[in-house]
Amino acid sequence: MRPSGRAPGQLREVRIERGFTRHAEGSVLVSFGDTRVLCTASVENRVPAFLRGKGEGWVTAEYGMLPRATHTRGDREAARGKQGGRTLEIQRLIGRSLRACVDRDLLGERTITLDCDVLQADGGTRTAAITGAYVALVDAVNGLIKSGAIKPKGRRTPVFGAVAAVSVGIWKGVPVLDLDYAEDSDCDTDMNVVMNDGGGFIELQGTAEGHAFRREELEAMTALAERGIAELIAKQREALAQ
Amino acid sequence: MRPSGRAPGQLREVRIERGFTRHAEGSVLVSFGDTRVLCTASVENRVPAFLRGKGEGWVTAEYGMLPRATHTRGDREAARGKQGGRTLEIQRLIGRSLRACVDRDLLGERTITLDCDVLQADGGTRTAAITGAYVALVDAVNGLIKSGAIKPKGRRTPVFGAVAAVSVGIWKGVPVLDLDYAEDSDCDTDMNVVMNDGGGFIELQGTAEGHAFRREELEAMTALAERGIAELIAKQREALAQ
Amino acid sequence: MRPSGRAPGQLREVRIERGFTRHAEGSVLVSFGDTRVLCTASVENRVPAFLRGKGEGWVTAEYGMLPRATHTRGDREAARGKQGGRTLEIQRLIGRSLRACVDRDLLGERTITLDCDVLQADGGTRTAAITGAYVALVDAVNGLIKSGAIKPKGRRTPVFGAVAAVSVGIWKGVPVLDLDYAEDSDCDTDMNVVMNDGGGFIELQGTAEGHAFRREELEAMTALAERGIAELIAKQREALAQ
Amino acid sequence: MRPSGRAPGQLREVRIERGFTRHAEGSVLVSFGDTRVLCTASVENRVPAFLRGKGEGWVTAEYGMLPRATHTRGDREAARGKQGGRTLEIQRLIGRSLRACVDRDLLGERTITLDCDVLQADGGTRTAAITGAYVALVDAVNGLIKSGAIKPKGRRTPVFGAVAAVSVGIWKGVPVLDLDYAEDSDCDTDMNVVMNDGGGFIELQGTAEGHAFRREELEAMTALAERGIAELIAKQREALAQ
Amino acid sequence: MRPSGRAPGQLREVRIERGFTRHAEGSVLVSFGDTRVLCTASVENRVPAFLRGKGEGWVTAEYGMLPRATHTRGDREAARGKQGGRTLEIQRLIGRSLRACVDRDLLGERTITLDCDVLQADGGTRTAAITGAYVALVDAVNGLIKSGAIKPKGRRTPVFGAVAAVSVGIWKGVPVLDLDYAEDSDCDTDMNVVMNDGGGFIELQGTAEGHAFRREELEAMTALAERGIAELIAKQREALAQ
Amino acid sequence: MRPSGRAPGQLREVRIERGFTRHAEGSVLVSFGDTRVLCTASVENRVPAFLRGKGEGWVTAEYGMLPRATHTRGDREAARGKQGGRTLEIQRLIGRSLRACVDRDLLGERTITLDCDVLQADGGTRTAAITGAYVALVDAVNGLIKSGAIKPKGRRTPVFGAVAAVSVGIWKGVPVLDLDYAEDSDCDTDMNVVMNDGGGFIELQGTAEGHAFRREELEAMTALAERGIAELIAKQREALAQ
Repeated sequence: MRPSGRAPGQLREVRIERGFTRHAEGSVLVSFGDTRVLCTASVENRVPAFLRGKGEGWVTAEYGMLPRATHTRGDREAARGKQGGRTLEIQRLIGRSLRACVDRDLLGERTITLDCDVLQADGGTRTAAITGAYVALVDAVNGLIKSGAIKPKGRRTPVFGAVAAVSVGIWKGVPVLDLDYAEDSDCDTDMNVVMNDGGGFIELQGTAEGHAFRREELEAMTALAERGIAELIAKQREALAQ
Repeated sequence: MRPSGRAPGQLREVRIERGFTRHAEGSVLVSFGDTRVLCTASVENRVPAFLRGKGEGWVTAEYGMLPRATHTRGDREAARGKQGGRTLEIQRLIGRSLRACVDRDLLGERTITLDCDVLQADGGTRTAAITGAYVALVDAVNGLIKSGAIKPKGRRTPVFGAVAAVSVGIWKGVPVLDLDYAEDSDCDTDMNVVMNDGGGFIELQGTAEGHAFRREELEAMTALAERGIAELIAKQREALAQ
Repeated sequence: MRPSGRAPGQLREVRIERGFTRHAEGSVLVSFGDTRVLCTASVENRVPAFLRGKGEGWVTAEYGMLPRATHTRGDREAARGKQGGRTLEIQRLIGRSLRACVDRDLLGERTITLDCDVLQADGGTRTAAITGAYVALVDAVNGLIKSGAIKPKGRRTPVFGAVAAVSVGIWKGVPVLDLDYAEDSDCDTDMNVVMNDGGGFIELQGTAEGHAFRREELEAMTALAERGIAELIAKQREALAQ
Repeated sequence: MRPSGRAPGQLREVRIERGFTRHAEGSVLVSFGDTRVLCTASVENRVPAFLRGKGEGWVTAEYGMLPRATHTRGDREAARGKQGGRTLEIQRLIGRSLRACVDRDLLGERTITLDCDVLQADGGTRTAAITGAYVALVDAVNGLIKSGAIKPKGRRTPVFGAVAAVSVGIWKGVPVLDLDYAEDSDCDTDMNVVMNDGGGFIELQGTAEGHAFRREELEAMTALAERGIAELIAKQREALAQ
Repeated sequence: MRPSGRAPGQLREVRIERGFTRHAEGSVLVSFGDTRVLCTASVENRVPAFLRGKGEGWVTAEYGMLPRATHTRGDREAARGKQGGRTLEIQRLIGRSLRACVDRDLLGERTITLDCDVLQADGGTRTAAITGAYVALVDAVNGLIKSGAIKPKGRRTPVFGAVAAVSVGIWKGVPVLDLDYAEDSDCDTDMNVVMNDGGGFIELQGTAEGHAFRREELEAMTALAERGIAELIAKQREALAQ
Repeated sequence: MRPSGRAPGQLREVRIERGFTRHAEGSVLVSFGDTRVLCTASVENRVPAFLRGKGEGWVTAEYGMLPRATHTRGDREAARGKQGGRTLEIQRLIGRSLRACVDRDLLGERTITLDCDVLQADGGTRTAAITGAYVALVDAVNGLIKSGAIKPKGRRTPVFGAVAAVSVGIWKGVPVLDLDYAEDSDCDTDMNVVMNDGGGFIELQGTAEGHAFRREELEAMTALAERGIAELIAKQREALAQ
């Protein structure tokens, strides 16, 4: 029995609340159980130096954790004067994942920055962030289309397909979906999976925390992830339909 | 007529929501209209080096603004590698203000850190932060008392009285209470006032943005502030009573 | 009786020595008793990015304290790798205060930087800095006029009026003017006041160190400040007339 | 045909040169074709603060790239004043991978730091680094055993098993082993795999650069990786036997 | 003819003013012509970590240049967030030079920090700093002796002999002593020489700015330096005798 | 007898290996005995801001030490977030030394960066670096000439003459050439000398570690240096001739 009473293949309660704050072009509060991440999408009419004059856009992400999002207070990265390795690793992952569903030519010379700030952490903050940031990104791009700033080519818009993420792991010998903090801090393997709505893998990052994992465990975990991500993509659609 | 339609001496709608997140010993989402600040109080059983072994506690504050809390996205301070002057100034103000209502001997060798993170900004973030942080501080201290970690001396607890803050200003020649962003960016004078429930001033920071202000304007502004702060302290009490 | 033997409304001996160093367009050594601050004004023919092409000038300030300006040696900020919160707060205050007497359109696309470096500290370094920096600023602007770089419009030059600053406080229950270090470290309230020669307030920053201060104390302090600033402005005029 | 003329499942020429420098307790120059990484293992008789007094050791890694290890010169991270996200990500990966084969209780309160510095880069620097660092680690631990500082428990020494790493990818639609720079910059999927000598996965990090990859591609890639890592572990043994 | 009208072997006017500021244990304003450096010596009863418990003292130096000490304003190092290479190089030189005349065992576990801050620069700031810092150091050590904190052993005190410094160079083909800015920016060779009162060399740093210098030029320059330093040491004695 | 058994005027075995890595325009592994430094020369078609549009080129150097190049592991400067004073001092010295043999007009608007990274340290890393960097510089410039990017004027190319460096010192009272670590950490005087092939001095940096050194010791040391540098320049020629 999982600490939360969930079945091995069961997600936590997922909520996707659009328009959580007013200023951002997309603003989503995503919850995977007690993990709550505020994802905003900001549109700016400029691109980084390496893209200037090429007619392409850019999508990037920044990730942060409020100091007391966690059980014990962590240092504020701004006060320490640098972002830690974990933070940089996560925001690079979020950026790569979201760029995988964006047609940067259609976006034009614009940057969309996805700020993912964890208000409360209970495991899986990076997968919740990716899942929520996708919705904020769609809202921002739809705003650009609605305002006429971007003209879709036929049915193609700058965002193609959908992207979501979930963690899977081996907990007490059993493959489980969407680990919460209690499981995450006590599991043998922890894997973050990012997939698109076509069932393709975008990112796969597995780490053996205890013993090394075997090929059949890898298969069981990816199978769980596929099902979980299908559910998450349905939740994204539902939220976007409202 | 103020942009928001408010009367000169009228506060914005103030909401104080306790228990907004789970892990912190005190966690308050405070709203002054569209300004929303998450204030958490974290208790740690250690004090800064300059207080070690003296039997006294410490109360300090950190302030941050999510990059897209504002109309246009601002740099993330953690990414830039340092906190700006404005941030440092505000967090020093919050810390001083809250220490003004704390008996640090009764607190014992503990640090309470008040993290004030602006989720959405519409003017007056520092005054909202002080007003909300007070409630988070009381929750944290009450928790320490309830758990037996701190024993009040008779009726004295580590928090005495109440502290709240509000901005006042001269907007189009008229003294007004609790400036929102539209007023703040277009006023002649902007003053932040921190007071206690005994009507005493704890901090007063006035800046002439346009023309220098006169003694009678100072008096009109402080009178408005007194009334506003009395209302805010009533709101704090109400929230704490729930 | 004040530690220095001064009457409550008495300034320390104030000296304003122009031309203290040779290279700067304005260079003033200002002393408020044992507090000595070297204020230089440097003119550069460029403005910060946010002002480029607007035809306006900029006035800004930087503040520093030599490591052994104080009773015990403090860290050198350059060696620590960042300016502290107190430093940033003070230099922002100096900059705002001086901009309040500058017509930035008349100044043209130039930056005047006021470097205020404390050679010896005995309380009131920021108020001495503002008072001295004003004189350095006038010298620099007069140099620009004399060289023909700036042409005044009729009688209007880029500096209008005068700006000076002084601290006031409640020390052992008595409102006193121009606190020295002995008073500053032992007072109930400490307030820095910046005013112009028209008697208007430019900045007012009061902090209750011990008990909260009351409206009548605020009035007594601002009254003392008004008188003190009138004296300081007379000293500035005298220095500029030499 | 791969740019290098290799077969899809063929490694580059792998060389592992022990004792490349004199001072380090382990010093290995590892080459995967033109990728050359100097891996040193340094033993220190202290552990990070979070482990003090627990009787356990620590293994950690740092990664660097000489500025002109690459086709065009990159900034020196020491001069820029911070390590980039890629660097931090890689050194975290190396550290986790090596800790997976270390019994930290047997190691005792010691830290072994694996410095992996890329002298020449041609793709796969992180996998070469892990493969070489393992050999340097074994040399350092054997030195500790030989000097009597560590006493093995029966046949157990602080290093159990072996760890090696290789990259795999989908290049022009074909799964290939050990990508060089030409392939790496032009592939659809890039995956770094760390495994032990028991055939278990320690780390798996796959990224879709072009199109998302499918379950059967994942399987083909992990199968290639398994074979490649078996060869690498044989090379490590051979080097250690000399 | 030198720009200043001086003879090739003539120093600028040298002034050494003790007690320039009040708080430091030694405080000297040294002038070599228009170069003015404030040198303070601060005594602290602790030593750096690498000396703790060894019974020895430490002497170190820090160097800074006020932003407008020079013809055009330079960045403030504290604001830029780091000390430049030139600053570090100079402060290392000052520290080494002064340690050459200190008996660190007799000093006991104390640190004396020599802060050398350039108020006005006209060439030769590092040599003026060394020459002035020596006097500040002697004042600080004499204070320790007078207060009984240090007991001299017979006639030996923690400072033995004297140390002074001067620059020499080849200017328009002629060896000259004590270069000012006009010469320094237009010379073929620039050499800083630190010597003691016994005529021994402590530091010698020569740089060919234009053409490489020859052995006989080196000899001519060191001969000039010897004479100049003898004069400077006489000035130090004179100042210390007052 | 020197620890290494060398005669006082004997260099360590010097090896200069060109083409050590592939990507750089010049790449030299230089060894002075056990001191091994990798020197690469990188050509970029841009110059620093202060030279833009002047038609001149720039030559600069960066220096680094791998963390375990030394007997005990040193901090990685990139991880500490800044280059130390020693590093900055050395890289400034290397840059100045190499610029002394470069005709920057003939070089054109290009920057050549000499990266000198110490793989193994045994004293004299900076002198080895200068000696090796010269060869890398020549290789890079010859490449530019061969490709037609630079056209020599008659027989003049951007590099004129040769530059090499060696250390000399007073060890146990005897002047010795090319100190290794054992001598360097136990000598009375340590001097680094940079000379050109015409026998002129480019840099001379002598430091008395123990007692101050005398004029005749200076002469003995520079005489040794002259001879050593002549040998080094012969080695450079030999290497370039291959």
